[in-house]
Amino acid sequence: MTTEKLNLLYEGKAKRIYRTNEESVLLVSYKNSATAFNGGKKAEIEGKGRLNNEISSLLFEKLAEKGIESHFIKKLSETEQLVKEVTIVPLEVVVRNIMAGSLSKRLGIEEGTPLQKPIVEFYYKDDALGDPLITEDHIDVLEAATKEQVQELKTAALKVNDVLISHFKQCGIRLVDFKLEFGLTSEGKLLLADEISPDTCRLWDEETNEKFDKDVFRRDIGSLTDAYSVILNRLGGEAACTK
Amino acid sequence: MTTEKLNLLYEGKAKRIYRTNEESVLLVSYKNSATAFNGGKKAEIEGKGRLNNEISSLLFEKLAEKGIESHFIKKLSETEQLVKEVTIVPLEVVVRNIMAGSLSKRLGIEEGTPLQKPIVEFYYKDDALGDPLITEDHIDVLEAATKEQVQELKTAALKVNDVLISHFKQCGIRLVDFKLEFGLTSEGKLLLADEISPDTCRLWDEETNEKFDKDVFRRDIGSLTDAYSVILNRLGGEAACTK
Repeated sequence: MTTEKLNLLYEGKAKRIYRTNEESVLLVSYKNSATAFNGGKKAEIEGKGRLNNEISSLLFEKLAEKGIESHFIKKLSETEQLVKEVTIVPLEVVVRNIMAGSLSKRLGIEEGTPLQKPIVEFYYKDDALGDPLITEDHIDVLEAATKEQVQELKTAALKVNDVLISHFKQCGIRLVDFKLEFGLTSEGKLLLADEISPDTCRLWDEETNEKFDKDVFRRDIGSLTDAYSVILNRLGGEAACTK
Repeated sequence: MTTEKLNLLYEGKAKRIYRTNEESVLLVSYKNSATAFNGGKKAEIEGKGRLNNEISSLLFEKLAEKGIESHFIKKLSETEQLVKEVTIVPLEVVVRNIMAGSLSKRLGIEEGTPLQKPIVEFYYKDDALGDPLITEDHIDVLEAATKEQVQELKTAALKVNDVLISHFKQCGIRLVDFKLEFGLTSEGKLLLADEISPDTCRLWDEETNEKFDKDVFRRDIGSLTDAYSVILNRLGGEAACTK
């Protein structure tokens, strides 16, 4: 059976989600839109959708190899992938290995300072509120997840971190921090979802600390597609990184 | 021996702290300054220092009666009290019973919504950073307190909440939320410190929800001294509340 793209279910800042002719299978189409600062900065960047779809597919495959399930089923085309349908938990689960970005500002600690051990943070997925940092008590008040789910999210996020750190390390990339989203299947099982790409990770060259992620766009410090292409090449194109 | 006020050790937004002729005993002098929004709004309000000193003294005495120790030794004059010297832990420990203020905005939940159970939050005491909300992992990164101290702070804050809720209830006041600070004695013991006053608590009339706290000043909705006087009278002036 060929999978057919049916009606648009949801359009986000970086992706469109379509229903398909298969039950519980959705089609994700990566857009060329780049946005930052909660939509305050926007651009259309030719090739971005393809890069993120390719990178995200490679990373979900790598995680699956290492025993970490996700909503990812398969890459369908240059800009499309098939995923299992889940109900997204309204939390951004952020893992940090090195101080950077908003946390660097929040705590007044210089960007680039390594953390003694990875930390996990939760941000409430709500554009109108600016995706605020929240505590586990706040998650409870918002009923965004149960206490058990919060523990499961933390454990899962740290496992993903372990796999990604060592995979990127083989490619000469330092995994500074990243954002994950999870969803609930119809059976109530938590599943890694959304995407893992230079839009959602901070990725620095191990030697030079050159940035190959969305900070290039946020901070106007180079070409987004050049940066994302480096990641794609290092992840898939080079012998040393295909192991 | 009479306690003598010696040199000024520290001047904050609402209090001055002096060394005394007694070892490990400091003198706190409450100022008439009112500030809000991290110093963005300021005023001098005649009588404020006296009201906060009197209220804070009454509340520390009530807590001591109920077995909760603090740095408070005794009220010395209308605007002064003697306290034990501690090194302040750089955390604002906030307890909330009812949604209000910054958390109401952060989570998009209407002010006045009761919480199913009290929650404890930590804010990093740093004016330059705007006293940001932080998680327990951030406290670890900042080395602001040990994991054991964080647990102790939470337990202590919830105990204070229990005593204050029922004491204010006797006075027809709803304890919406409040901020505590703690310090370490030279023996490394955590001790409740700073002040407990309408500057650091949200206090609403049980019947009318009229505000008798610093929101009156923050939001320009009445006379600060009138509001704080209601609290002082209800806490000390009425038979039903002196029990």
